[in-house]
Amino acid sequence: VTAPTRFSLQYSEYWRHNTGLTFGIKALLHSERSPFQHVEVYETDAFGHMMTLDGVIMITDYDEFVYHEMIAHPALCLLQDAKRALVIGGGDGGAAREALRHPSLTRLDLVEIDEAVVEAAKRFFPQLSASFGDERLKLHLVDGTAFVKEAPKGHYDFILVDSTDPVGIAEGLFTREFYEACRSLLTPRGVMVVQSESPFDPVNGHVVKDVRRLFESLFPIAETYLASTPSYPYGLWSFTLGSRSLHPLRDYDAEAAHRSPFADELRYYTPQVHTAAFALPAFVRQLLSE
Amino acid sequence: VTAPTRFSLQYSEYWRHNTGLTFGIKALLHSERSPFQHVEVYETDAFGHMMTLDGVIMITDYDEFVYHEMIAHPALCLLQDAKRALVIGGGDGGAAREALRHPSLTRLDLVEIDEAVVEAAKRFFPQLSASFGDERLKLHLVDGTAFVKEAPKGHYDFILVDSTDPVGIAEGLFTREFYEACRSLLTPRGVMVVQSESPFDPVNGHVVKDVRRLFESLFPIAETYLASTPSYPYGLWSFTLGSRSLHPLRDYDAEAAHRSPFADELRYYTPQVHTAAFALPAFVRQLLSE
Repeated sequence: VTAPTRFSLQYSEYWRHNTGLTFGIKALLHSERSPFQHVEVYETDAFGHMMTLDGVIMITDYDEFVYHEMIAHPALCLLQDAKRALVIGGGDGGAAREALRHPSLTRLDLVEIDEAVVEAAKRFFPQLSASFGDERLKLHLVDGTAFVKEAPKGHYDFILVDSTDPVGIAEGLFTREFYEACRSLLTPRGVMVVQSESPFDPVNGHVVKDVRRLFESLFPIAETYLASTPSYPYGLWSFTLGSRSLHPLRDYDAEAAHRSPFADELRYYTPQVHTAAFALPAFVRQLLSE
Repeated sequence: VTAPTRFSLQYSEYWRHNTGLTFGIKALLHSERSPFQHVEVYETDAFGHMMTLDGVIMITDYDEFVYHEMIAHPALCLLQDAKRALVIGGGDGGAAREALRHPSLTRLDLVEIDEAVVEAAKRFFPQLSASFGDERLKLHLVDGTAFVKEAPKGHYDFILVDSTDPVGIAEGLFTREFYEACRSLLTPRGVMVVQSESPFDPVNGHVVKDVRRLFESLFPIAETYLASTPSYPYGLWSFTLGSRSLHPLRDYDAEAAHRSPFADELRYYTPQVHTAAFALPAFVRQLLSE
């Protein structure tokens, strides 16, 4: 059966008013209302498979490498010898895949509230969910805010928060209480990274500043960095890094990062990109200082 | 008269297949078939005024600062004391506005083939076209490829090519012949910068490589740099810099750039951003080395 030629299916994610990204859609591959959210997977005409949660684009085959490399490697290459990592959210497995490239890691706890995300990733994004087969990964299908209250103090070298936008189920992942709980789980050298929305976004752009402020009040070192993400609003995404002792630029060993065994496998992150990502455009510096 | 509520007007620019950016439109302010192209100006719901040429987005109020700052300041801050500049294309005045911030400039020749672009900019983008009031600017309403054949050799410290995509009238602005002619107009210290499309673009991404190759064959120093442009395809844009003697990183004086009288007025470019812009993601380095 061939599709009729008199319609075209398009998915538009509106960033503001009627403005945003439109994807030509070949097929809706999966649609499910989990106990937590609406999980959908599309086959797009130009970005491969695409997963949305409550109608917000999470991952596309075409550009997921940017976000996942950049949420994991700056902190892990700074740490060099991280052993225990905690990933909150990121049930698609992408952030875990990047973290697990680091041979020093002996254990990665992945805490995802929604099993439906894990199952959809296993079925439609095998290049992401392959990390679930790594014996160092332990999956916990529980609420991240509950997990961090119970986890052992001073245990993790690296905590990564790969959340959805700060509304609905992810709201608790953008609070001082949650960040404080995470901080208490870090080793003395520990580093924490969270996604913090787009600085170009007139609606959610305040998150860049809000998270930075919270991190500055909780960590001696707090920095914001950026990456180019075509399928996310405005094409530019921010991450906030909090650290108990290591500075992401002053304590970064570019030579060691160059020598990492997986350096040739990455498609975005390089030691030069590491340093460059922390160079903020003037309007972002302005936003952070307001 | 209020608009009826049963329709919404949207402009979609498709990057590939049915995928691209969609803008909610409040009004079509201007539509004109000039001798060269279709010039339109829209009032968008989220990006202010927007100009399109033959249906391709050129400028929006919201993010024009990124492209215009980044096509002008890296080379001019490298040169520090550029006196004579040539801008090919850029009839909207945005690139000229940024170049003219440099007090060392005594003359800027702006060569735009299409007067309709200049007139539309004057009417709908006064913050761009204000540069036309600068007595150092001389407007030439002629074909750029013809202008560079006639212009005096060794005359310009800086040549900037702010063209449309390499199809139709702009095709001649992406050729070896044109670049050779431009090179002959440069002073011994001269620097040339051209826009060279998005490296994320599977269709036009080869331009990043093609221009770099041509520049490498024509200049002892050829480098590619990037900036985040929300309204351009894939949100990441490339520029190629060719230089007869100055290297954009090794010969760049960040301290001098910090002290420039207009440093506080810029919204994207900073000395840190200058250096960071040349740090290419791994996939871009790969694209350039293929």
